[in-house]
This record gives sequence, structure tokens and C-alpha cells, in this order.
Amino acid sequence: MSHKKYVHGYTDRESERLTDQAQTLTTFLHDDTHYPAGSRVLEAGCGVGAQTIILAKNNPRAYITSVDISLDSLLQAERMIREEGLANVTFCQGDIFQLPFGHGTFDHIFICFVLEHLAEPQRVLERLRPLLKKGGMITVIEGDHGSAFFHPGSLFAQKAIDCLVRLQRDTGGNALIGRELFPLLSGAGFGEVRVSPRMVYADASRPDLVDDFIKLTFTAMVEGIGNEALDKGMIGREDWDRGIRDLYRTCGKDGVFCYTFFKATGTRT
Amino acid sequence: MSHKKYVHGYTDRESERLTDQAQTLTTFLHDDTHYPAGSRVLEAGCGVGAQTIILAKNNPRAYITSVDISLDSLLQAERMIREEGLANVTFCQGDIFQLPFGHGTFDHIFICFVLEHLAEPQRVLERLRPLLKKGGMITVIEGDHGSAFFHPGSLFAQKAIDCLVRLQRDTGGNALIGRELFPLLSGAGFGEVRVSPRMVYADASRPDLVDDFIKLTFTAMVEGIGNEALDKGMIGREDWDRGIRDLYRTCGKDGVFCYTFFKATGTRT
Repeated sequence: MSHKKYVHGYTDRESERLTDQAQTLTTFLHDDTHYPAGSRVLEAGCGVGAQTIILAKNNPRAYITSVDISLDSLLQAERMIREEGLANVTFCQGDIFQLPFGHGTFDHIFICFVLEHLAEPQRVLERLRPLLKKGGMITVIEGDHGSAFFHPGSLFAQKAIDCLVRLQRDTGGNALIGRELFPLLSGAGFGEVRVSPRMVYADASRPDLVDDFIKLTFTAMVEGIGNEALDKGMIGREDWDRGIRDLYRTCGKDGVFCYTFFKATGTRT
Repeated sequence: MSHKKYVHGYTDRESERLTDQAQTLTTFLHDDTHYPAGSRVLEAGCGVGAQTIILAKNNPRAYITSVDISLDSLLQAERMIREEGLANVTFCQGDIFQLPFGHGTFDHIFICFVLEHLAEPQRVLERLRPLLKKGGMITVIEGDHGSAFFHPGSLFAQKAIDCLVRLQRDTGGNALIGRELFPLLSGAGFGEVRVSPRMVYADASRPDLVDDFIKLTFTAMVEGIGNEALDKGMIGREDWDRGIRDLYRTCGKDGVFCYTFFKATGTRT
């Protein structure tokens, strides 16, 4: 898994987009994640640090260990964290299937936008669970591209989104994973699993959200896989262009866009 | 419109289901709808009174006028309200396209699960608007069957839901209307339009919701149009049965079901 190509995450523009996305959704996704002073937190799969910076700022007195398989990503993440003057994060290169930590090391584990890329998400959760102290808690956040619906409706826009879902499936991932967090965490042996869906709803009464989410986050992400989808013959150029145009059209004054993230917690019982 | 057959609403079992549904969703959909003492409220399209009873109980000192085109429905609604000992509702038969009230009669209008059945929902809203006093407010609540997604996924379940969407379209309605409330209210001339999406999320950690919503509300509603969908050749018997079975399967211990209602308000400016 760890050697598979991710659908997104490895270009400069992508890094920017992921950071933008994290800024936009900060309050919405993270404001109820608080770790007490002195607690040891593992961030599993920190990538370029888009979530790390939020965790570190929101929990200045927690000790955060952020791991990723990619040294390049870690270096970017570390640079950003240091530039912000944050000292409470230790970075560590490692494969989340076999992390170099002893059982019962952490009070909390945080894993965000990672499981969607993995062919065996439940197995990752099973591997992470023993790293928690008894009573320790995991927080998982994922999107679900199948949760997207919008007005005006468009089969072409739907097709473009489906290309992203298929590409992610082709590389072993699951772009519809958000809805599965309950069975995944339960199946991995966590107790007291609770899922909190968080819908982004954007219409013309919320122009910032229209810009930040529909344009800069969601549609930018779909657009980003255009060449790959076209190269693989998943869709024709005309349909693709129309799909992207129709996604942007949902930003119009009569447009509406809905997308749901899922945040789940589970306890090592 | 007013003479068209509704997809649902006209059988005893249906009445029961609609009442069940209203009980289940009461808190969730209605708890932030409060009308001050002495205010005059129009409920446009009360049907068998499933929402009327909630409005009347939640707003004991408001004067509620509930209208419907169907005398049978009104009689049922009235009986239920009287049995509950509620005196603050006046029932009145009328076509919501041409109601027998003067301009500026009401402080509030409430219209719930009605627009989905009408071919010209925006025109209804345009007709209702002048009945409000200046500064008066309308509240609209609708579901959106295109917002449903679930785990385990099933193309058959999706097909069964699509039959309901198509039947509603064939009778001039729109089962995907929830997402359109913002443009509909804005287009009808209301100001300060605000939409609040409300997702029902059910998994095994919420067994009551699984029973009440997935089984007794949503799947019961889909099941209710089975004969019609089969008679019209929209789907084969085998696919239908499998679709319904797969919907019930989302009630299992690893199942998840998501559905979104939309509640919108607008002001007569």
C-alpha cells in the first residue's frame, strides 16, 4: 500500500490546494478536537502538514508525533511548522503499517484524509489500535465523493466526479470511504465508535464558502485529475470540459453544492 | 397541479407512515420553529395533519390556519387535532394557488413536504408571498431523495429509489427538490433566504434512528411504490426485491444510511 501512487498529494499545486482546503475547513472539521496538556498524540500520515499545523496550533501543550512514508512531504511539513514557530511537533518517517512505536505509547491518534488512499484501511486501524493506551482515543476524518450533489444538476459533472472515484479505486483507494467509518472502526476492534457527519452546504448566501469550497477545494481537486482521466480514456474531452464547466456553474447565484465529511472517534477499550 | 395524483399521501397505511415520520423527525426538523403568542400562521398544504399537530403543540398561543385541497385529508387532520385537545388550529379547504385570504394576513407561513409534489413550486411560493405581512417569514421543509447514500452500497437499492424519483417526476413533482430551496425562494422574491440542511445519519450506534428512519420512514416509503413501479415496467420484480432487501440490509450492524432534509426560511421584504 505504502508503495502505491496516491491520486493526489504529490505536486506543488496539489500541496497548495491541500493547504487551502485545510484552512477552509479548519473550524468546521477540527474545532472539537482538543488534546489536553501533556498528552501524546500520533498523527498518522501527515503528508505536507496541512492538518499538522492545525493540530499543533489548537493543542499547543500536547506532544504531537507526525509520521509519513514520504520524506519529501515530511520536509515540507517540518519547514512549515518551524516557520510558524511551533515546537510541539516531532516528525518521523515511517510506514503506518509498521510504525516504530511501542504498544500503549499514545493517548490519542489522529488520521485525516489518509484511509481513502489505502487498499486495506481496516488493517491500518488494527495496526494503530495497540499503539494507544487503554482508554485512548482515535479520531478519523474522511470525505466521501459520493456524498456530493448539487444544483443545477449535470450528468457531465457527475461523470467527471466519477472519474476521480474510479482513479482512486484503480490505485487501491476508496473515494467513498467517509460513509464506512463506523464499520471500519468497529471492525478494527475500537469501542464506543461515534460518527459525526459534517455537510458543507454552499449557496449564494455564503459567497466565501462557494469560493473556498466549491471552486478552490472540490472542483480544483476534480480538475486536477483531468489529464489522467483523459489519458486513460475514462471520458472524452468534450464531456470532461462540460463536466468541469457545470461544476463551476453550481457557483452561480442560483447554484447549490453539498458535500459531506465524516469525523469518527473510537476508543481502545 | 392540485388535481394531480400525489405519489404518496392517500392510503391508510400511508397516513400512518406520514404520522410516524413526523413523530420521528419532530425534534430534528421542527424544534427551531417557534411562533410568538398571538401570531397568525398559515400552514399551506397540511395533508392529514402530520406536521399540524407538531406546529400546534409547539406554538400553543399562535393562531394556526391549516389549508389543504383534500377534504378527506382535512377531516382526518381535524379529528386528530381535536382528539389531542388542541384548539389553536382552524382548518380550511383551499387550493394553495388561490387561497381565500387577503394580502398581509399572516405573520408566518409554514409549508412542509408539499412543494415536492407540485410542477410549479416557484409559482406557489410567488402566490403565497403576498399573504405575508411585510417582514413576515416563510419556512419551507423538503427532503431530497438524491441525497440518500448508504453502506453497503447497492445498485439495486439505488434503482429502487430512482423508481420513486421517476414516479414523482411523472406526476409533475420533484423528489430532488430539497437542494433547490435556495433558488426557489430567491426566485419567488423572498429576501434573506437561509437554508439549513439536516442530515439524518444512522448506524448501529443509533438503533432507534435505524428503526424509525431507515426502516419505518425511508424504506417503507420506497416499498410503498413497488406495485406502481412494477406495473409501469420501470423495474423487474427480481431487481426490485433485491433493491428493497439491500435497503433493509443497511440496517445491519455494519450498515450506514444518510439522508438530508432541507429547511429554508425567507422574508417578505
